[in-house]
Amino acid sequence: GGIGTFAHLKHVKCLTTPNELFDIGIIGAPFDTATSYRPGARFGPRAIRQASARQTSFRGFNHRAGINPYQNWAKIIDCGDIPISPLDNTVALTQMAAAFTELGLRGTVSPLLPKPKLITLGGDHSLALPALRALRQVYGRPLRVLHFDAHLDTWHPDKYPSAWPSNQAHFNHGSMFWLAGNEGLLSNASTSPSVHAGLRTRLSGDGWDDFDDDTKQNWVRLIADDIDDIGTSGIVKTILDSFAFGVDSGEEQAPVYLSIDIDVLDPAFAPGTGTPEPGGWTTRELIRILRGIEGLNIVGADVVEVAPAYQGAGEETALAAAQVVYEILSSMVK
Amino acid sequence: GGIGTFAHLKHVKCLTTPNELFDIGIIGAPFDTATSYRPGARFGPRAIRQASARQTSFRGFNHRAGINPYQNWAKIIDCGDIPISPLDNTVALTQMAAAFTELGLRGTVSPLLPKPKLITLGGDHSLALPALRALRQVYGRPLRVLHFDAHLDTWHPDKYPSAWPSNQAHFNHGSMFWLAGNEGLLSNASTSPSVHAGLRTRLSGDGWDDFDDDTKQNWVRLIADDIDDIGTSGIVKTILDSFAFGVDSGEEQAPVYLSIDIDVLDPAFAPGTGTPEPGGWTTRELIRILRGIEGLNIVGADVVEVAPAYQGAGEETALAAAQVVYEILSSMVK
Amino acid sequence: GGIGTFAHLKHVKCLTTPNELFDIGIIGAPFDTATSYRPGARFGPRAIRQASARQTSFRGFNHRAGINPYQNWAKIIDCGDIPISPLDNTVALTQMAAAFTELGLRGTVSPLLPKPKLITLGGDHSLALPALRALRQVYGRPLRVLHFDAHLDTWHPDKYPSAWPSNQAHFNHGSMFWLAGNEGLLSNASTSPSVHAGLRTRLSGDGWDDFDDDTKQNWVRLIADDIDDIGTSGIVKTILDSFAFGVDSGEEQAPVYLSIDIDVLDPAFAPGTGTPEPGGWTTRELIRILRGIEGLNIVGADVVEVAPAYQGAGEETALAAAQVVYEILSSMVK
Amino acid sequence: GGIGTFAHLKHVKCLTTPNELFDIGIIGAPFDTATSYRPGARFGPRAIRQASARQTSFRGFNHRAGINPYQNWAKIIDCGDIPISPLDNTVALTQMAAAFTELGLRGTVSPLLPKPKLITLGGDHSLALPALRALRQVYGRPLRVLHFDAHLDTWHPDKYPSAWPSNQAHFNHGSMFWLAGNEGLLSNASTSPSVHAGLRTRLSGDGWDDFDDDTKQNWVRLIADDIDDIGTSGIVKTILDSFAFGVDSGEEQAPVYLSIDIDVLDPAFAPGTGTPEPGGWTTRELIRILRGIEGLNIVGADVVEVAPAYQGAGEETALAAAQVVYEILSSMVK
Amino acid sequence: GGIGTFAHLKHVKCLTTPNELFDIGIIGAPFDTATSYRPGARFGPRAIRQASARQTSFRGFNHRAGINPYQNWAKIIDCGDIPISPLDNTVALTQMAAAFTELGLRGTVSPLLPKPKLITLGGDHSLALPALRALRQVYGRPLRVLHFDAHLDTWHPDKYPSAWPSNQAHFNHGSMFWLAGNEGLLSNASTSPSVHAGLRTRLSGDGWDDFDDDTKQNWVRLIADDIDDIGTSGIVKTILDSFAFGVDSGEEQAPVYLSIDIDVLDPAFAPGTGTPEPGGWTTRELIRILRGIEGLNIVGADVVEVAPAYQGAGEETALAAAQVVYEILSSMVK
Amino acid sequence: GGIGTFAHLKHVKCLTTPNELFDIGIIGAPFDTATSYRPGARFGPRAIRQASARQTSFRGFNHRAGINPYQNWAKIIDCGDIPISPLDNTVALTQMAAAFTELGLRGTVSPLLPKPKLITLGGDHSLALPALRALRQVYGRPLRVLHFDAHLDTWHPDKYPSAWPSNQAHFNHGSMFWLAGNEGLLSNASTSPSVHAGLRTRLSGDGWDDFDDDTKQNWVRLIADDIDDIGTSGIVKTILDSFAFGVDSGEEQAPVYLSIDIDVLDPAFAPGTGTPEPGGWTTRELIRILRGIEGLNIVGADVVEVAPAYQGAGEETALAAAQVVYEILSSMVK
Ligand SMILES: [Mn+2]
Ligand SMILES: [Mn+2]
Ligand SMILES: [Mn+2]
Ligand SMILES: [Mn+2]
Ligand SMILES: [Mn+2]
Ligand SMILES: [Mn+2]
Ligand SMILES: [Mn+2]
Ligand SMILES: [Mn+2]
Ligand SMILES: [Mn+2]
Ligand SMILES: [Mn+2]
Ligand SMILES: [Mn+2]
Ligand SMILES: [Mn+2]
Repeated sequence: GGIGTFAHLKHVKCLTTPNELFDIGIIGAPFDTATSYRPGARFGPRAIRQASARQTSFRGFNHRAGINPYQNWAKIIDCGDIPISPLDNTVALTQMAAAFTELGLRGTVSPLLPKPKLITLGGDHSLALPALRALRQVYGRPLRVLHFDAHLDTWHPDKYPSAWPSNQAHFNHGSMFWLAGNEGLLSNASTSPSVHAGLRTRLSGDGWDDFDDDTKQNWVRLIADDIDDIGTSGIVKTILDSFAFGVDSGEEQAPVYLSIDIDVLDPAFAPGTGTPEPGGWTTRELIRILRGIEGLNIVGADVVEVAPAYQGAGEETALAAAQVVYEILSSMVK
Repeated sequence: GGIGTFAHLKHVKCLTTPNELFDIGIIGAPFDTATSYRPGARFGPRAIRQASARQTSFRGFNHRAGINPYQNWAKIIDCGDIPISPLDNTVALTQMAAAFTELGLRGTVSPLLPKPKLITLGGDHSLALPALRALRQVYGRPLRVLHFDAHLDTWHPDKYPSAWPSNQAHFNHGSMFWLAGNEGLLSNASTSPSVHAGLRTRLSGDGWDDFDDDTKQNWVRLIADDIDDIGTSGIVKTILDSFAFGVDSGEEQAPVYLSIDIDVLDPAFAPGTGTPEPGGWTTRELIRILRGIEGLNIVGADVVEVAPAYQGAGEETALAAAQVVYEILSSMVK
Repeated sequence: GGIGTFAHLKHVKCLTTPNELFDIGIIGAPFDTATSYRPGARFGPRAIRQASARQTSFRGFNHRAGINPYQNWAKIIDCGDIPISPLDNTVALTQMAAAFTELGLRGTVSPLLPKPKLITLGGDHSLALPALRALRQVYGRPLRVLHFDAHLDTWHPDKYPSAWPSNQAHFNHGSMFWLAGNEGLLSNASTSPSVHAGLRTRLSGDGWDDFDDDTKQNWVRLIADDIDDIGTSGIVKTILDSFAFGVDSGEEQAPVYLSIDIDVLDPAFAPGTGTPEPGGWTTRELIRILRGIEGLNIVGADVVEVAPAYQGAGEETALAAAQVVYEILSSMVK
Repeated sequence: GGIGTFAHLKHVKCLTTPNELFDIGIIGAPFDTATSYRPGARFGPRAIRQASARQTSFRGFNHRAGINPYQNWAKIIDCGDIPISPLDNTVALTQMAAAFTELGLRGTVSPLLPKPKLITLGGDHSLALPALRALRQVYGRPLRVLHFDAHLDTWHPDKYPSAWPSNQAHFNHGSMFWLAGNEGLLSNASTSPSVHAGLRTRLSGDGWDDFDDDTKQNWVRLIADDIDDIGTSGIVKTILDSFAFGVDSGEEQAPVYLSIDIDVLDPAFAPGTGTPEPGGWTTRELIRILRGIEGLNIVGADVVEVAPAYQGAGEETALAAAQVVYEILSSMVK
Repeated sequence: GGIGTFAHLKHVKCLTTPNELFDIGIIGAPFDTATSYRPGARFGPRAIRQASARQTSFRGFNHRAGINPYQNWAKIIDCGDIPISPLDNTVALTQMAAAFTELGLRGTVSPLLPKPKLITLGGDHSLALPALRALRQVYGRPLRVLHFDAHLDTWHPDKYPSAWPSNQAHFNHGSMFWLAGNEGLLSNASTSPSVHAGLRTRLSGDGWDDFDDDTKQNWVRLIADDIDDIGTSGIVKTILDSFAFGVDSGEEQAPVYLSIDIDVLDPAFAPGTGTPEPGGWTTRELIRILRGIEGLNIVGADVVEVAPAYQGAGEETALAAAQVVYEILSSMVK
Repeated sequence: GGIGTFAHLKHVKCLTTPNELFDIGIIGAPFDTATSYRPGARFGPRAIRQASARQTSFRGFNHRAGINPYQNWAKIIDCGDIPISPLDNTVALTQMAAAFTELGLRGTVSPLLPKPKLITLGGDHSLALPALRALRQVYGRPLRVLHFDAHLDTWHPDKYPSAWPSNQAHFNHGSMFWLAGNEGLLSNASTSPSVHAGLRTRLSGDGWDDFDDDTKQNWVRLIADDIDDIGTSGIVKTILDSFAFGVDSGEEQAPVYLSIDIDVLDPAFAPGTGTPEPGGWTTRELIRILRGIEGLNIVGADVVEVAPAYQGAGEETALAAAQVVYEILSSMVK
């Protein structure tokens, strides 16, 4: 005992152990140099693992989901962290994409699952770009994204103000979904949108241009305040409807990448993050929504932007993140 | 002035002052060696007292309750702390039981109250076992418990995994209600249940066994998420109904022990605790529920699991606990 | 860049730059010696400015309000801080009143606005008295106040217990609205009341006297718990109705001073304050209410009682306060 | 047990219990409104008491002093706090002076001690003025002061810059020794100086005027850096020599007031203070110096400027202060 | 990568992997229920491992020692933690003794080392008793102890005051060396003493009895303040002399157990501990002393009493502890 | 008032105000993406400015130096921050070099000073490279560096382990002096070395190669522990001698760049930094050394690696850094 893996899961350095098969891998991305404000998410994986210490296989039954994800068909392991350069984001992006692809193409243990699933512990949100690049390749088709966040993260890279041109700077935690869309990683029909939930960011300029751009990129938006009008059930219904009316090729369920920026929670619940926005959701609301959408076909997920230097002594942010990972695991195994 | 009693109440070392009579005594149990995860609740009594500094008799009218508990019929004092060994839980259990019994059997000041009431500042939750042992003896009958908590605390002692047999380890903050039930301290007819409120713990194994065991022990469960469906009024109604249909011997009101684990609150509201669980209630919800059940016949109470090392600089956890004590006092005096 | 003004606004030392005109001025009042419990609000202005660092003109569109207050008709500047004595409240009061008056009587830039508006960053709540004195003079008529707070702040000065007579002590953060009323600064017809919102303080004595006194001073009270019954929309409606039925002289809109004590929020959302009260509102609720009352004729405002020594490393309290300032700016510009 | 007095000493509200006699009284002065920068020392007494929790009579032998001050001739009690207005320093000053005088004139228990001694837990440093006023009256003669501090605290009141005249502001934590000298409370012959130790403050203007003024007020200065040249033994020798050559009226030992501003320690050792100055002494150095001067005739003492909001979770500042109190007690009893 | 072992060493669950051989094992003892004051050292192993993250084999050369302990003859691994009951110290003691014995009797990898060495990350100091029991058995002879601590830890168990007899309570972090001596685990000739260094604790009663008892138990004492008189070189010399004049059976070097209570450091350097004592050593002094005694025959070591809940955000305490482990490793490998 | 410049100095955005002349400019470099471990130094400039709030021109006389730098011949201003990309270090390096060059080539106010001097508030240490590039150009000759640090920062860029080639990664906070030397920015004769002071880092590999490389780069090394043997006076003498024997072209004083990594202080004094190393210097020692070398011809300086997220609530690290800036200013003006 004693060494801190997620939920005391078996630890394997997956990237350097190519023969190790698994169904679901927890993997850390200690990366935060694509961050615009408070850095520190490089220690997010460590903090989330530490906060998961009371999750055990022995007492792991999720009464909300009716399942113990740690005692079921899936072999779940902790793959450790991806080695990532803190000094060159071009290298970092390559390292992450290579890692996600290599693991995504690996075989599984259970015959129930054709391809392994990864849950990435962030790290800043830009890691979703290499994750989507890998999944695009693994699944051979564009993905759809269910994105919980206070922010859009579909900003055109040029919207980050700088007098100096920089291709590298295009890769950042506010633009990775724009880049993903632009690269064809996301499903691009308006009938098969991706979905934001929990938005409350300020917008560029003096109007709704950012939202218009976002719509053009084929996203549906759920604003944080919507929950006051339609409740968690309304949020769940809008999400499910958005993914349902997008059933494009006769499939029951499109593959969905679930990307959870912890700043979707209010700073009272998750102060330990880089760009907090007052007025967010509670953890109870988020958990309920996550349970409500458990039927989606989640093929990969991340929980990002946990920056523990800004959390309290009680680790409330990392605890919430660890709970979210647990809910995702419950859905993936169910 | 200056010495920190609860709400500036008069301080008497009740245990060593046998002639001192009171109606309601606040007493600290600086104890945390029956804790499974983060210790530190031994400093809970000190923290709660400190956080109560703005409660005064002068400005103590509870507008929610319509009463100033500090200016009414009851003589309320701060009894100080029980001396408790941090090194031997068998001794500690004996010390607490002896203290609760000695004080519970003492006379009162007001003719309105036949037996004095204690509100214990925890300390870890296991102190409820000696409290119930004492009340069983004082009242000469089994009690019913209204239990606010994220956790069941009715686990069979063998469910704490250990390769080493230990009777002493049976006494811990997850099993004390199992022990209490087993010892006959709790009312044991299914028509007179005890009640949990705020549950959201993970369960043992791969099914509902823990809930089934709990039901067999004669408990009704209110899950944290129930509040989203039935509101605080629904929670209140279920609690009151549970106690009403349990009226077993023609009494108007069964004696109820009110046990409030501060982890019933979400970690945003009470990070200063040992085993926090995301997705809990807000302080406003808890206060409203407490006011709703003010008519119950509370014969003793505790507010436990306040571990100040994990709270913020603003003392939010201890403030919430001090408020809860104030609400209990309001109910007891009303 | 680099010097921390509110939202990167242009900084002018307004008080010593009499020729500098503006429409809306952000001004700090680093003052906390009229505080009854935890001091430290003198650093509130600094903390709020720091927490506003991610507010920019470039990305400042308020999607809730449909406006970017930083890109519109109003010239908004950061006036710096008022020099205030920490050693003599009589002097401090004079200093603040002089500053507010001098700036309030200054001309404006935009023809849309006859008189400049100030948003004061507190500092303890007593600064509302000099602010109201100034506005009384600037507008030549009594004001009405919309007051968000856990506390009444209309206490008779003698209600602060002291065995020593002191006129200076009358000026404190619990009595400034009593003083304001007494001085004729507030509209004093029962048909044109001021409004409290978010109250949950304990009251003096053993009854409702404080509320009765408050009513006599012509205030309407919204209790924190009212939101559970009538929702944010009910809160908004009551506020608007209160101000509407007070339309006294045929005006469409009475001039309103908006005074926001950050302790209206629950300690989970705003622990960094001097007299926190459990059971308060969430930031999301407060923002929604502020948006709901955006049509009021706000002629001045404050956001007070931010004491950063008691907030967490994530600056959640100052972030909430900075957001509130942004919402007020949105309303003032709209 | 359980109620936090200093070192578990017996608590008596000395001020309202005139018949209670004692030899040495610990008394809190929860006061910080004469502070120029970070407030919060009003909670210093509470913090120091809390940090003294591991001091007990049972295990209280000071191996450096060869005495257990808690098991000796002196009756030592915790007198609680002086009630002090946070709203009017003129009143506050009166309250403190009255309290110190009343207690100083009380009788003692032991025949060894003609007058009781007080150790005041601050609170800001300005409390030394009322303490000296009281001692001047009690002893009927001027005192000499041994002053440990990073700052001079002999500044002329007009040196605090303000455009507004204020007599009240003259009373502040940088000028109280000027005021004391001016009032004739201090021995005023250059042959009987008072002594500063640990100085490292910046000075007014562009020269040594502050030091010259200080010399004119009859003070000897030991700069913080002197310890690097002459060691703790040199510091001790200079102090003892200063007091020795001041033996003015044939006495063996002049009565000395010992005033310890915790900011004499480096911010690494005492960050929890209002005006920290890098480059200070270590706790070990201070303790050694205190032991070295134990032979002085200390007739009263204070330990001031402990502002716990700025200390770490480990309470290092209050621990150092509690240790200093213990060393003073050891000297007083020896 | 990513999983936090000490200095990124290979992790093996040594206790459940009997075939795994090693020369030096780092092992955690997450235990703190034999603590008298602030608990939390159960998280010491986790904190020390986290703080060791910048120690790598690649850049691990100790310029003070002239060796890179991670690139040398010794196979060093991280054995994880011993499973230890937090609920029954009798069980916990048995668990620790069994673990230490089992590992101590295991074979080694290098022929240079006949028996493997353990460095235990505490945990509270009482773990030294089971460590010494194991070493007594492994080496077949009594040990000598070099003990860095503010406290004696040789107190007779009855010196912990309690009205209740308890054999279990005898095992605590202030009495384990008394117990060890009593059990014959320590060399018991006055010519072969054990050594305390850094002492500054208060003593029992009104005299030097604790020191006398300690002498009778065959200990030499170095007081914290001695360093001011004799410097680190004097401390080193006294230690080496003490062990030299104890060469009892013709050996060059007696086997020494090195036990480092982090509270030997001043609270400025190590606030994250349970019973801090102002006036301690600096980290630089401790490192220099450790390097000075590197020639001793250290057969086992511990670094204990790291309670991270009380350290600062900068992890200074755990960093100091990780550095101490590194210095011990350097000595063991050299 | 109110807006936080360094020491309340006048603020000018120097970079966009080309006509603004000054003698000494304080400039922030909010940059931390060349950091290997804990990021957050981008908020260093803000933290140091905040901690300088008690430095004023009015009371700014440095008694150690005999000068008030704020009331003397030099026009000192706060230039604000350099705009720096957090997303592309190649751009960031260009931005910083351009800023330093542009300002370095600007004219001065005082005829005493031919070229303006900058003191940079970091930011991570890599900013020294662009600073040296600029000074090389401004002075038309290589510089010599006086470098206070726990670390060498002369590592060959390939010594940062990575499997991925990256020119950009060569620019990092451990290699910038290697790069500077390689680019010819540093004086490269062994008779005119640069100097490290305070070193205590671990070295690469299993020997002294890093030191040998450093010597080849023409550096003299003062190890942290040297101070225990030669005192601050010995450190000062070695520094002065090193610069004296390097007088190469008949000059009295070579131009020296003073670079102070705050991690030269022990973590007790400066926990708020990215790569803390136990065993460092005290602030008092550092100040004394800085005063001792005041005669050097410092043409530019930085104070770097202040990461406030890791400091305590008392801001000890930023206070130390602000004091260091003040000492540098004193030297520059003297
Ligand atoms: Mn976000
Ligand atoms: Mn995001
Ligand atoms: Mn619980
Ligand atoms: Mn519980
Ligand atoms: Mn208020
Ligand atoms: Mn309020
Ligand atoms: Mn001072
Ligand atoms: Mn002072
Ligand atoms: Mn110890
Ligand atoms: Mn110990
Ligand atoms: Mn460094
Ligand atoms: Mn460096």
